[in-house]
Parts: sequence; structure tokens; C-alpha cells
Amino acid sequence: MQTPWDFRYAQRTQRMGSSAIRELLKLTENPEIISFGGGLPAPDVFPMEKIKEACNNVIDELGAVALQYGSTEGYTPLREMIARHTSRYACEVSTQNILITSGSQQALDLLGKIFINRGDRILVESPTYLGALQAWNAYGAEYITVPSDENGMVTEQLEDALRIGPKFIYVLPNFQNPTGTTLPLKRREQLVELADRYGVPIIEDDPYGQLRFEGEHIPSVMTVDNQYKGNHSKTYNGNVIYLSTFSKILAPGLRLAWIIAPPQVITKLTQAKQGADLHTATFNQVVAFEVGHGGFIDEHVKTIRSVYHERRDVMLDALEKNMPANVKWTHPEGGLFLWVTLPEEMDTIPLFQRAIEKKVAFVPGHSFHPDGRGKNSMRLNFSYCKPELIREGISRLAQAIKEEMAAAGKT
Amino acid sequence: MQTPWDFRYAQRTQRMGSSAIRELLKLTENPEIISFGGGLPAPDVFPMEKIKEACNNVIDELGAVALQYGSTEGYTPLREMIARHTSRYACEVSTQNILITSGSQQALDLLGKIFINRGDRILVESPTYLGALQAWNAYGAEYITVPSDENGMVTEQLEDALRIGPKFIYVLPNFQNPTGTTLPLKRREQLVELADRYGVPIIEDDPYGQLRFEGEHIPSVMTVDNQYKGNHSKTYNGNVIYLSTFSKILAPGLRLAWIIAPPQVITKLTQAKQGADLHTATFNQVVAFEVGHGGFIDEHVKTIRSVYHERRDVMLDALEKNMPANVKWTHPEGGLFLWVTLPEEMDTIPLFQRAIEKKVAFVPGHSFHPDGRGKNSMRLNFSYCKPELIREGISRLAQAIKEEMAAAGKT
Repeated sequence: MQTPWDFRYAQRTQRMGSSAIRELLKLTENPEIISFGGGLPAPDVFPMEKIKEACNNVIDELGAVALQYGSTEGYTPLREMIARHTSRYACEVSTQNILITSGSQQALDLLGKIFINRGDRILVESPTYLGALQAWNAYGAEYITVPSDENGMVTEQLEDALRIGPKFIYVLPNFQNPTGTTLPLKRREQLVELADRYGVPIIEDDPYGQLRFEGEHIPSVMTVDNQYKGNHSKTYNGNVIYLSTFSKILAPGLRLAWIIAPPQVITKLTQAKQGADLHTATFNQVVAFEVGHGGFIDEHVKTIRSVYHERRDVMLDALEKNMPANVKWTHPEGGLFLWVTLPEEMDTIPLFQRAIEKKVAFVPGHSFHPDGRGKNSMRLNFSYCKPELIREGISRLAQAIKEEMAAAGKT
Repeated sequence: MQTPWDFRYAQRTQRMGSSAIRELLKLTENPEIISFGGGLPAPDVFPMEKIKEACNNVIDELGAVALQYGSTEGYTPLREMIARHTSRYACEVSTQNILITSGSQQALDLLGKIFINRGDRILVESPTYLGALQAWNAYGAEYITVPSDENGMVTEQLEDALRIGPKFIYVLPNFQNPTGTTLPLKRREQLVELADRYGVPIIEDDPYGQLRFEGEHIPSVMTVDNQYKGNHSKTYNGNVIYLSTFSKILAPGLRLAWIIAPPQVITKLTQAKQGADLHTATFNQVVAFEVGHGGFIDEHVKTIRSVYHERRDVMLDALEKNMPANVKWTHPEGGLFLWVTLPEEMDTIPLFQRAIEKKVAFVPGHSFHPDGRGKNSMRLNFSYCKPELIREGISRLAQAIKEEMAAAGKT
């Protein structure tokens, strides 16, 4: 059906592809497919009863306030709760530094809206989070990539990229999406030092920071920057914009996340958010505060960590037992994902077809590269499926890989 | 505090002003001020118990699905419910025509994102909804205005505006925000005829359509367009994009609205929404479906109508009793707002200061004009305050107006 809208699209729509991940999420609706695609938390660890109790309490105690319009910045007690948490674990911030967003995806969109002019270059790890590319493509961003290895961004190669003149650096230092790697302290220090030398600020995206189940906590890039050059003040210096979310520590279906930024940036983001969705759902914010303010989340993440720890172990074990010798993968110390690299000649897009026939799904790795590389890699999610399904799914996937190799005459 | 972000803002931020309405919402937090600003529904009519029951049911019955990530298009049963409702009251649509958004504000933002190139001209009523201007300013929209009178957009003056070549027409035909006026059937027909003649499509924003408490229902512009030139097919023809919301018939704090558009436009909007916030909160969608699917909302709007009817009557009566003779106002047959026009020499911005001193608030009218006109007008909300507060507030406001007139030597 032709309509008068058909020839009226804005130029920017040409850069808005549909996300492979979103299309894959649809596959997870077919219960026969074991999906390692998507970034779904384990439904087993949603605190259902606690959230139910909170829904009842906020309606009984706050009444209509819980369902009325609210301020764009977000529900003040929730912002205070986040400020207290950040001041304890990173550096001292106040509610003036905090904007509540409708998921971290909105944080990325609003940051693109206020910072990115068409043609601006953004420095990213390669591979990087697909959702950031998707949000920023709409504003006409170009990308400068820095390669990564099993320890995240190779900061030794950062300086050349900084000389090209990026507007900002975007980095996911903990259990990165898609690779699952973690940037060591030394590299965080080098990142902060070089960013300072070239005067380029950093956006740190940290959805999984609290989901470490192995190894030692490493201070956030925001914290490292704050203590740079022997600074002993704990007060947030504003150089690093920090993003985190309730999606992985409470429930993604609430769509609640937050941005930490200098007050003047929060003001601009708030103006952008007014135009984008007025404010994040009041009800969800008061429920999250009700669930979280007594310290429940700190306890609850321990359960999540132990469930994800087991599932990661099961997946690593299954990979070890099933995969051909020339397949490699990362060993994440937390988070939801690991990254598999096949021999260079292989392509995970035709492999995906074969995998779907065997009723197992993953995300082909090229989606996470702004320059289309990474075709021999894939992202696997280990948080969503129960252990027995992980074993079965990896066995199917290994079979698909072996057949694909055989078809290409590589066995 | 200076930060490395200060000189990095995108050009578009220069066009993103902070909304006067949003700033005013903050004033409503001061309980001493009687606020006719904002667009708040009466908290008295939120169906608290029904929503509480729905929260409990969805957690008990759907379990983790209610809190998990969902599809960008929205929760299918909710889209089916909206499709059934639209097919009954307007024209036949399917889920393919429907996208769930995080409030109507997001619908406006996504439409701007997919349709507006910098410099594109959008045809609007003058005055028009502030939130649309705010959303579209960020994409560099310019505006062609058509004046309005007590019957909404003066369609007799539409043709000249259409000759300038707008990308689309934006109209709020029912109980318009800010004026409270309703476009009569004859003007809807003229609008559709002229839009067809010039090949310009229409966006119809209808948040209040179900809140008519006086007079007869008038078919939506979408419906009138669908039946244009004697077409007897009820199937949606795709010319008019239609927006509505649960904010005014259920609760705004859930942030739930929808867009009806041709499937190919829904596809583009879905891509834009993926980058903007992935999807609207799952929990809120399943709760709205649980509340609405048995026909509860149709019954509930009767309560809302009767409450708003009474409050409008009280406000009209108080205006009649208190205002000087040269002050005029509209007589809305539904919705939440009415529009007051003062003598031309007056300016509602200094008046606003004086009103705040008397502890009463409104929205100065110039905010709703893309060209800065309307400085002698104001928007009053009659849905939020209880009748006794409306009487007291209008009395204070009349006092402020009289004093302002006296100060200007106009009494």
C-alpha cells in the first residue's frame, strides 16, 4: 500500500538499520530454539515477590503520586539512593549529577542528541556495544576504532586514535558487551592519562559492574580519573560521564537506568529528555526505590552472581569439551557474555543459518564492529539459559561449526 | 566547575529550550500554590485498586515475562486490544499498524526523528502543543502556522499555508492543548480535502478524545479521511498518522501511548525506537493490558468525564464571576484545558510573577506559539484541582489580573 508518507523520510533514516539483536530476541520466543543471542538476564533471579510487595506498598503509601506525572530529572529519593551508592563505591556525587533514564539505551540516545553533530568522530573499542552504534548512527556519528584483546581495549594503541580528534571516548570497562573482557587497572590508568593529555572526555558504560563473580573489583574509570595526578578529593570532577542501570541487578522490564555527569551536562540532557519522553515512568521509579532503599539490591546481586558464575562455568566447560581446537573464546570474570573467535576464513552469518536449523542461536560478531569486521566471531550469552540447556546448546553449536568447517573443506 | 564537556555540545542543543511547563510542574510541588499550570489529570480518578490488583495478577500469572526485556513494537496483546478499540471507533487496523511508545511525547520525538530534516516546514495550528514544538525543534523543524478561533484551526486559511509546502500537518482536533477547542466536522472535512489536494499527510494527536463530557462525538480526522470521496472500506488507508495515550484515561505515571500508522512507517519508527529506548517498559504494558482488556477503561472514562465536567463548570462559573469584562475564555466540551485571552496590550509573563506571589499558577500563552505570539493569553488546567481550590485559585488569578491592569493604568 502506497501512502503519502513514503517519500518523506528524513536523511538520517538511511543510517538507522534494524538491530540484529532485536531480530534475534524474536527468535527466543520460539521455545524450541536455545538462544545465546539477546542479552537477557536470568528470569530465575528476578525478585518477583519483593517487586510485588513494593507495588502494593507504593500504591498504599504514596497513593496517586506513584501514578502521576513526575519531574524529568527523576524521582528524587531514587536519585538520592543512587548518589549514596556512587559516593560509597566510586566518588562523591549529589542528585544534581544524576538523571534517571528509560533504560541505558535512552542514556546513549540523549548523549548522542546533545553531543553529536553529523560527522563527529567517536572513539570506540572494536568490537563495541551495538546499542551505542545504533543510537549514535542516527545523529551521523563516525567512528575511530581501537582494537581490543582478552584484556579489553588495547590502550597501547590509543594515542594514534586520539590524534585523529575524537569528540569523546566510549568504553565498557567491566565484562564488556560483547566480549566479556575487563580492562585491567593499568590500562584504565593509561586511558585516563592519555584522555587527559589530549583533552578528550570519556563516557564509561557500566551495566554489569556489580556482577563480578571472580577476581577482584577494579575501580571504575570515573574513580581512576578522579584520583588522577594524586588528587585526594573524593568529589566527582566531571571528566567521565558514567552510565549504569537497574536492568541487570533488578529487572530489565522496568526500563530504569541512570547517568552521572556534571550538573551543566545534566541540564542539557534533561532538556533533551523533556522532548524525548517527558520523564521515565513514575511508578517504576518509586517501585525501584521501594525495593532498593533498604539495601536489598546489595544482597540480591549475590544471588545473581552465584547463578551467573555457575552458568559461565557450565558454558566454558561445554565449549572446552565440544569445540574444535582452532576455536577460541574469552573467560569473563563477570557479566552476561563471552566472545567466540573462529578461524579467520570463517563467516558467522552463514553459520547462523545452520545454527538456527539445529535450534541454537547466537549474535554474529560483525554487528558489534562499526567497520563491519569481526565476521569470524560471535557473542554468546550465558546468563539466560539454565545449565542443562547451555550444555545442549553448545553441543548443537559445536556441531554446526564442525559442519560449516567441513562444508568449507577445513576439517 | 569547568569540564571537558563544556564546549562539545551539538548545534541542535541551541534549539532545545527548557519547557516552561516542566518548570511549572515543579511549582506544583509547593502545596501552597494552586496550580492551573501543568496538564495533570485528577489524581482522584486514578483507579488505584484496579492497578494494584493488576500488578499482583501479572506477577502471579505471567511471572518473569512481566519483568523481562520485550519487543520494540510493544506487548502483542496490548497492541491487539488497541487494534480492536480503534477498529470499533474509527477504522480497521491490525497490530502491524501499532507501535507502543513511552508516552505520546516519545511518539512525537520518533516522528520527528524519522521525518524531519533540518529546515523542513511543519504546518501547525497557532497556538499548538508545546511538547510537539519541543520534540521537533531538536531536529531543526521550521513552522508554518494557521490561526485558530473558538472552533480550532481556521481551515478557511489553510490553503495559503499548504502552498508553502509543509512536510506534514500537525493537528489536535479534540479539546486541543492548549486552547480546549474542538474542530467541527465541516472543518475536519475541509482539512482532509485540502490535505488531499496538496498531497500533504496529517498527524492527528488525540490524547483527550475519550474525555468528552458535553456535545456529540465527532469522527477523528483519520476516520474522516478514510471515508473521503465516498470510500466505503473501513480499512485504514494510511494517510493520517494517529496518536493517543493511556495517560489521560488510566494514569500518566505509566508512560504508555501508541501510534497508528502504515506498516512501513511503523517499521521505521520501530528502528528509531530501538535506538531511543529499546522498548517501552514491559511491566507497564502488561499491567495496562490486565486493567483494560475486560472493558474496564470504557467504564472508567465515564467517571473521569463526570469529574472533569464538574470542574470545568466550576472554573467557567468562577471566571464569569471574577474576571474583568475585557477578559475572554474558551468553553471546552471535554479534555483538561481552557484558554484565557486578556486585552491585547497585556503580557502574561509579568502577570505570572504577580500570580505566583498570590500563590496561583498558569502557563503563559506565548509558549504555545512557535512564532512567540500569544503574549496576552494563558492556558488554565481544570482537571487537577478540586472544585473549592478552582474557585479560590480563579479568584486569586482575577485579583492578579486586575492589579496588573491597574498597574498599567488600564482599569
